[in-house]
Amino acid sequence: MHVHGTPTRTIWPLADCSGVEIIDQTRLPHRYELKRLATWQEAAEAIGVMRVRGAPLIGATAAYGLALAANADTGDAALHAVAASLIETRPTAVNLRWAVERMLAKLLPLAPTQRRDAAWAEAAAICDEDVAQNQAIGRHGLELIRAIRQRKGGTVNVMTHCNAGWLATVDWGTAIAPIYAAFDAGIAVDVWVSETRPRNQGAALTAWELNQHGVPHTVIADNAAGHLMQKGEVDLVIVGADRVAANGDVANKIGTYLKALAAHDNGVSFYVAVPGPTVDFRLASGAGIPIEQRSAREVTHITGRDPDGELAEVQLTPDGSPAANPAFDVTPARLVTGLITERGICKATKEGLAGLYPEQVK
Amino acid sequence: MHVHGTPTRTIWPLADCSGVEIIDQTRLPHRYELKRLATWQEAAEAIGVMRVRGAPLIGATAAYGLALAANADTGDAALHAVAASLIETRPTAVNLRWAVERMLAKLLPLAPTQRRDAAWAEAAAICDEDVAQNQAIGRHGLELIRAIRQRKGGTVNVMTHCNAGWLATVDWGTAIAPIYAAFDAGIAVDVWVSETRPRNQGAALTAWELNQHGVPHTVIADNAAGHLMQKGEVDLVIVGADRVAANGDVANKIGTYLKALAAHDNGVSFYVAVPGPTVDFRLASGAGIPIEQRSAREVTHITGRDPDGELAEVQLTPDGSPAANPAFDVTPARLVTGLITERGICKATKEGLAGLYPEQVK
Repeated sequence: MHVHGTPTRTIWPLADCSGVEIIDQTRLPHRYELKRLATWQEAAEAIGVMRVRGAPLIGATAAYGLALAANADTGDAALHAVAASLIETRPTAVNLRWAVERMLAKLLPLAPTQRRDAAWAEAAAICDEDVAQNQAIGRHGLELIRAIRQRKGGTVNVMTHCNAGWLATVDWGTAIAPIYAAFDAGIAVDVWVSETRPRNQGAALTAWELNQHGVPHTVIADNAAGHLMQKGEVDLVIVGADRVAANGDVANKIGTYLKALAAHDNGVSFYVAVPGPTVDFRLASGAGIPIEQRSAREVTHITGRDPDGELAEVQLTPDGSPAANPAFDVTPARLVTGLITERGICKATKEGLAGLYPEQVK
Repeated sequence: MHVHGTPTRTIWPLADCSGVEIIDQTRLPHRYELKRLATWQEAAEAIGVMRVRGAPLIGATAAYGLALAANADTGDAALHAVAASLIETRPTAVNLRWAVERMLAKLLPLAPTQRRDAAWAEAAAICDEDVAQNQAIGRHGLELIRAIRQRKGGTVNVMTHCNAGWLATVDWGTAIAPIYAAFDAGIAVDVWVSETRPRNQGAALTAWELNQHGVPHTVIADNAAGHLMQKGEVDLVIVGADRVAANGDVANKIGTYLKALAAHDNGVSFYVAVPGPTVDFRLASGAGIPIEQRSAREVTHITGRDPDGELAEVQLTPDGSPAANPAFDVTPARLVTGLITERGICKATKEGLAGLYPEQVK
């Protein structure tokens, strides 16, 4: 999508394959800075500290991490070791494991001398496929928004959580792709952006990218989601996911479950937009999804822009008060109206997923 | 309760009745500063910008606001005008109107020369009654905690929202009073303190006062509440209220409704602790409760302590992104397990409230 009017992806290789460049998302919305990753360790660090985040982009970055590793050593042992280290950087998103396993499946059968070029080609293919999948999610989700518009007229009010926009993917986004598609199709949309404490990916990233694209939006505290639904100010909720189990249970950013409960209580449709690689068909239900516990400091401190325009971190809690920081929760499939995938929309059930991905089920 | 080991209330009159002193709660948890209010306008300002907040403390401050007004002019016209201005400072909490109307009912029948002394005496009585009511709430709520302790053993994990501790009242608090009572009775309690965006009364005030009293607690992002209940880490939720309608609907800090939904979905008891003056028997249901819309800046900016120890405000959102800030939501009575009042515990129904407050219903 556009940054200062220029079409931009979140990750791209240098022409000589000596490295990749990313947008450093820890600096947004106040600084737009690129960062060059020249080693797989730098790719792993970028994933771990969330310079890149979002399940699809984590997968793409891990794929390039293996390409960077192949610049140095294309042996089986080296690739296996790097793959294991990359998978450990974040536990919840399944795209990470998916991308790493796809890279290994492509590279290991080849002669070591062929692996470097193949790695860069495969990582690029993963990125291009992600973009195509997200565009397809956008087309399918657009029809939901169009139907609401035809039913009620006026502006369609969509609520989202965290950032599942183009910054969470290689381009276009998952949950926001239908919103971009609707906006580009001339349908009036307005987006409730919940700030998404503790890391504020909504207030920092979703607001920034909607701003760059010119899509009307309003930032709210996460706490306000239920009240707005009670007041009829939300027509549709669309969120992304870090992992969807085979039964349709959804692991996504902490707080998603609360929005799903409120949507259910108020008769508001609650959709989850996911590309195929985010569905973990090996996992029977959400109970098996590991929930990452992140640093308490993400709760006790926050970074913003001070009056001088500098980035500054401030402490929010009193000294001596501990904090806990589970980063994801699991929304039971019973609260999910449907899944928007690149192959179409299905119910959040085993049968619904099997209908769209028959090759994944025996 | 204790501040640095010294018993302290949130508001008290100067000995010569020339003013009142408050703890400036906008400076907590990083600064403990007292502020002197010498005029009713200063009392109104303190309520409006939330130097004092919490339904009971707002009522107490408004009562002293009329006492301060009586220092200058005890005429009917002056008292009526001040009363109207004080009621307008915050729309949602009903204690404000209750305290102002009680003061007028006491003062207006008196000769103007008697009103000044009577005003200071009545405001002090309102404060003393608040403390006694909250201690009674603590005694009744303690039995809920004791019953959980007897059933499961070990530590009782209580979740709360916003600040309904002693800082929200004159002393003891409403929702936190049972926790203090349990702690003082030697029952092991641990409190999940949700930070309560956008103004962070949980992270700033509840954490601070629990810290001062030595009660174990852990701060969480508001988003984490549902996940912790899913994981069985919450035995009981207790919140306060700004206004309870005659049918048991509860207006409280924005985000309360989401916690009530999560508690209901996970079979966790959800109690609301309220003194009688917080129940608005004139209001049939929560649909009639006005919801205060506060400044967008409370969402887009936040104040904390910078690395030099200074209070600093930082901007969280990109320039150009608007924000909305509804300050309260209404939790339907069907999600409330019970109300903990100074007269005992009742169901959140018209009949339940009528049983405890028969004099309020025809």
